[in-house]
Amino acid sequence: MQRLMDLAQIGSIDGGGCARLALTDEDKAGRDLVIAWMQELGLSITIDVIGNVVGVWDVGSGRPVMTGSHIDTVRTGGKYDGNLGVLAGLEVIQTLQENAFTPRRPLAVGIFTNEEGARFAPDMLGSLVYVGGMPIEEALEIVSIDGVTVASELERIGYNGATPCPAIAPHSFVELHIEQGPVLEQEDIRIGAVTGVQGISWQEVTIEGQSNHAGTTPMSMRKDPALVAAEITVFLRNIAMRMGGNQVCTVGKIDLHPNLINVVPARAILTLDVRNTDEQLLLQAEAEIAEFLERVAEQEHVSITTRPLARFEPVQFAESVINMVHDIAVDHGHTVLQMPSGAGHDAQMLARVCPTGMIFVQSRDGISHNAAEYTSPEDIEAGSNILLHTMLQMAQSEEAFA
Amino acid sequence: MQRLMDLAQIGSIDGGGCARLALTDEDKAGRDLVIAWMQELGLSITIDVIGNVVGVWDVGSGRPVMTGSHIDTVRTGGKYDGNLGVLAGLEVIQTLQENAFTPRRPLAVGIFTNEEGARFAPDMLGSLVYVGGMPIEEALEIVSIDGVTVASELERIGYNGATPCPAIAPHSFVELHIEQGPVLEQEDIRIGAVTGVQGISWQEVTIEGQSNHAGTTPMSMRKDPALVAAEITVFLRNIAMRMGGNQVCTVGKIDLHPNLINVVPARAILTLDVRNTDEQLLLQAEAEIAEFLERVAEQEHVSITTRPLARFEPVQFAESVINMVHDIAVDHGHTVLQMPSGAGHDAQMLARVCPTGMIFVQSRDGISHNAAEYTSPEDIEAGSNILLHTMLQMAQSEEAFA
Repeated sequence: MQRLMDLAQIGSIDGGGCARLALTDEDKAGRDLVIAWMQELGLSITIDVIGNVVGVWDVGSGRPVMTGSHIDTVRTGGKYDGNLGVLAGLEVIQTLQENAFTPRRPLAVGIFTNEEGARFAPDMLGSLVYVGGMPIEEALEIVSIDGVTVASELERIGYNGATPCPAIAPHSFVELHIEQGPVLEQEDIRIGAVTGVQGISWQEVTIEGQSNHAGTTPMSMRKDPALVAAEITVFLRNIAMRMGGNQVCTVGKIDLHPNLINVVPARAILTLDVRNTDEQLLLQAEAEIAEFLERVAEQEHVSITTRPLARFEPVQFAESVINMVHDIAVDHGHTVLQMPSGAGHDAQMLARVCPTGMIFVQSRDGISHNAAEYTSPEDIEAGSNILLHTMLQMAQSEEAFA
Repeated sequence: MQRLMDLAQIGSIDGGGCARLALTDEDKAGRDLVIAWMQELGLSITIDVIGNVVGVWDVGSGRPVMTGSHIDTVRTGGKYDGNLGVLAGLEVIQTLQENAFTPRRPLAVGIFTNEEGARFAPDMLGSLVYVGGMPIEEALEIVSIDGVTVASELERIGYNGATPCPAIAPHSFVELHIEQGPVLEQEDIRIGAVTGVQGISWQEVTIEGQSNHAGTTPMSMRKDPALVAAEITVFLRNIAMRMGGNQVCTVGKIDLHPNLINVVPARAILTLDVRNTDEQLLLQAEAEIAEFLERVAEQEHVSITTRPLARFEPVQFAESVINMVHDIAVDHGHTVLQMPSGAGHDAQMLARVCPTGMIFVQSRDGISHNAAEYTSPEDIEAGSNILLHTMLQMAQSEEAFA
């Protein structure tokens, strides 16, 4: 808890939040602080070519059991998102050291570069490069929203390390993270055993109609992009309710042009965020939306074009890790829910190369990416203990498992 | 036509449009030019306390038959809106002078201050004060979008005249204006005999919900203002279609906050523009909307507040003038449609104090408030001739009529 509060002082913003965009001076200061803590615990530190920091407690033998997350934040971030996963890893190692318990495998804690994607796209960049999902040459050339490259910013803050990527895969990976959603709190459950990450389909929809005077244009002569944007928004909600399960659909962004009270707009641009844990259902939702867009364009005499913005297939975590987290939580007397993650996390990248899972703890009011983000000390303690015992159980395993 | 093109050079913008916001340097230059033309025609010029310019051809006897409109424009205005009504008045007088025809009453041409309302609210300010609808003291204190008062800008450009308002009512009033809508063009009709002006109900609706992560928040736990804004938009369209007649409803402005692809918004602010030519029907539409807002707020677990922005009852023009315009147009071999105006005009203020009507000519593609605003020379000639003969017929009348 003290480390969480100390780290939150770096880049602190009004209301108790944090702004530590990736590879800024604030990010450097945060990294320096966490590395100092790693050194106090005697960890061996490596920095790789995309700036990921890995601290290894070099005990036992074989490939390490790894945990970790990120310490970059969005511009209006909180204290817990990412930071908890890194600092809980340090707490696990410190606790074992204080109790003179030596695991059978090395334990590693990673700080992954630019998880948020708030300064450089895509998000989860560090873990993506770590597992070989993007060549380092390509990653280094990415330009930030403020016009500088990953390469130049890594060099500027002194985090252009030498360790190559893709890295050697760890034995296994487990990440503790706040839920960033309301489910655990509303269901009054302490621990989430995360089953995977929802697939995401993002697209931008542009509707071109005819700008007209709101008073002089009869309804029958209109080609109204605002109305069509509204019809699409209502359709998305209806499709999510009809499909049920883990299907969610969101229209979070609508821009009308010229956006005046007495003008039928010429153009509307809106974004569609569609997610499901099941790839087949996600494809079905996408197909129904495409069909609706075609139909509504014809009915309302507008033209509609779409631009894909992002598409990720759902990620399924290892059954072995899900069950391990679940059973350990039950053994510790906690309520547990097996649940998907609606947000992306570094763990989904690690899942490409080793058995991987995640542990969720409650987010008060489901709020995240906000200064009001809060998780109680009791939940943090419970989640950290489940992390400890999961890592230990992984470390006891002689062989790879899946 | 030459005067229209010359006036359009003042404050000209790309694409052939005009930006002459009320009481700016451009407005002053436009006024100076039109007054010079009035002086060439020998008109007596008066400027009143709100800056309205009235040029009177002092012939015959009794109160003058008046025409006129405005020469201020919106920021992206065209060449015709307002300007046509003023310059056609000059053309009428010049034509009579050239043909040595002296009407029985004086003819007057007015330039009304700030009709557009694009710099000072409310719109139609000059004609409103002219007829006594707002005390001059109140009008002079109105502050522009750029932070200056009507009084200081009138003084700055030298149009703070001495003629008192309310002014002496003219004998009668008729205004030529472009339709600013698509109806005449689509119905292939030359002249609109305007029956009145739609009543207008403007309100701003603020929806407060709960900002949430688009991935982690199940549909059932959402309080989504964007969805509610969409439902309201669809409801407005449906109510207009169901009521039929002259009912129109428009949502032209929607602002979501924070307006991000992956965030269920915290807040949506949208505007409702609802118009009808019948006050009872307008009241009915308003009541149904209010009821819907209450229902949808409860269903979707959001809070909704509304703020009235403007409310004008429908205006009915004088039957005598409507019929006069209609019959004269038919006599000249034109097709005519009796139609309401969906936009506000200075004539609706004059209708409070004397028998009033309007003449509409086509707007190509219904486009106005746009550099692409266009009315053909043939339509302008036809409309101006109807204006001439209507004013003459009014001037032949010994007594007031209604």
